[in-house]
Amino acid sequence: MTQYPTLADVQAAAARIKPYVHRTPVLTCASLDDLVGAALFCKCENFQKVGAFKFRGACNAVLALSDQDARHGVATHSSGNHAAAVALAARLRGVAAYIVMPDNAPAVKKAAVAGYGGSIVYCAPTLAAREATLTRVVHETGAMFIHPYNDARVIAGQGTAALELLTDVADLDVIMAPVGGGGLLSGTAIVTAALSPSTQVIAAEPEAADDAYRSLQAGKILPANDPRTIADGLRTSLGVLTFAVMQQHVQQIVTVSEEAIVSAMRYVWERMKIIIEPSAAVPIGALLEKKIDLTSKRIGVILSGGNVSLDHLPWSG
Amino acid sequence: MTQYPTLADVQAAAARIKPYVHRTPVLTCASLDDLVGAALFCKCENFQKVGAFKFRGACNAVLALSDQDARHGVATHSSGNHAAAVALAARLRGVAAYIVMPDNAPAVKKAAVAGYGGSIVYCAPTLAAREATLTRVVHETGAMFIHPYNDARVIAGQGTAALELLTDVADLDVIMAPVGGGGLLSGTAIVTAALSPSTQVIAAEPEAADDAYRSLQAGKILPANDPRTIADGLRTSLGVLTFAVMQQHVQQIVTVSEEAIVSAMRYVWERMKIIIEPSAAVPIGALLEKKIDLTSKRIGVILSGGNVSLDHLPWSG
Repeated sequence: MTQYPTLADVQAAAARIKPYVHRTPVLTCASLDDLVGAALFCKCENFQKVGAFKFRGACNAVLALSDQDARHGVATHSSGNHAAAVALAARLRGVAAYIVMPDNAPAVKKAAVAGYGGSIVYCAPTLAAREATLTRVVHETGAMFIHPYNDARVIAGQGTAALELLTDVADLDVIMAPVGGGGLLSGTAIVTAALSPSTQVIAAEPEAADDAYRSLQAGKILPANDPRTIADGLRTSLGVLTFAVMQQHVQQIVTVSEEAIVSAMRYVWERMKIIIEPSAAVPIGALLEKKIDLTSKRIGVILSGGNVSLDHLPWSG
Repeated sequence: MTQYPTLADVQAAAARIKPYVHRTPVLTCASLDDLVGAALFCKCENFQKVGAFKFRGACNAVLALSDQDARHGVATHSSGNHAAAVALAARLRGVAAYIVMPDNAPAVKKAAVAGYGGSIVYCAPTLAAREATLTRVVHETGAMFIHPYNDARVIAGQGTAALELLTDVADLDVIMAPVGGGGLLSGTAIVTAALSPSTQVIAAEPEAADDAYRSLQAGKILPANDPRTIADGLRTSLGVLTFAVMQQHVQQIVTVSEEAIVSAMRYVWERMKIIIEPSAAVPIGALLEKKIDLTSKRIGVILSGGNVSLDHLPWSG
């Protein structure tokens, strides 16, 4: 593993991916501010290409490869937003993408990968099968593995969201992001520590998948053991790179109940008129649940993604 | 009735309401562009205060009143977005708002008006009862009636959305807006004719509520006879002011099937990750249905609002 990235790496990533990513808007909502008692600035990564911040990191990692390294394509295993992000990034680069997915992955996720021209390689729905299948695919094709978060280029790409947010909104007291594998959080923390050291970085995590919280307390990475949370993007364990950044630059992790996640998601849909996925609702859930007192603060919140099935909403029973 | 407003009136409205309205973003969507074969620039009035462009017009009309005229408050009849818009505008001005609503109005609409401090006056669910009740309320309270669309100050306020859109996006070939009573459409047409005369103004209307289409053909206002369309904001008839503007400045009205409205709404939710109401989906529906050939054009689309019940989605049976 390499060193974790610096601000300069994030700035280089921003320049590299600029022609391909959306510069997402920052939205505010008076009624949400009233409810929380603070001023929220929501960075809408749900509007990002492929519907999630994941495209920033995947795009940076795929574009940063040398022609030599990229010539046999790229590969990853994911059943979520990273899969579609790698497929689109590879298409933009004009190389093959091999995406290892469990055979029970949702049809909408398979369709997204296929729609971007990715080759899906199915495996049994276990971590062991995923990793074995990925190893085989990499061996057979010569494709470069793009890890979903424990990769310095991916982390640098994810950090570009916070770079834009800090450019667009002055004097933030706090930046909040959800934490799963920690790619978004560590990219955010690197940028914030360098550009706005007085701004606190606070992560939010489902109570039901609190491995990042426990890992920071324990001082070592503790695995997420098949957690049951509606926030499907946040079920993964930390990586050594993301954990190292978090130990240095993340001030606090708050955990959030499943009820608060769903309430926050619905509130944002109803009042902000934007579609966010459960993982993206976790920081708002922490604020609604008053897990931390941030009264009167200026809070940047990264809304991480907006990929949900409109046929199965969590409040429709 | 007064004359219809000019560009100068719209510019004055923009200055007057600026501290109170959101300057809504313009979003683009590559997959939607691919599907339509054109470049769409979507002005997100679903993000406007009260969730619809209606707040622009109501805010301008209420703030433009003299202190003398405003002292007994304002009144209107509406079961939709104009009701909430007038209630909020009156609260900002610090005067009373009397909102005549049918007693069978949806609970969510009543709650919105009450939440902004409006006094609801119930009536039977007929146009005759609404008008009689409004007349009584105005007589008893001395409140000023704010018509939902056939009012020069309201039209000027609605025109500020197109003013922003034309400022933010250069060289539009077309601007599209839905048409119900015609307030948004006529405000849009006034601004566009004055600032960008080569830009065509094209309205979209449900087939099932095509009174504006038929009125323009006939050269006189034909009433909407209790139309059955999911686009609940577009069931009203034109007014003399809005019709006069449309006769002069609107190039075309296209009509859209109910199916295309629902498909367009769902597509925007899924791909753009924003919540729009059926009325807002009508112009997109016209493009998806290929009712007009706008291939390769640069098209501004005003997404008029985002107020829907999340418990009753049109695709959930």
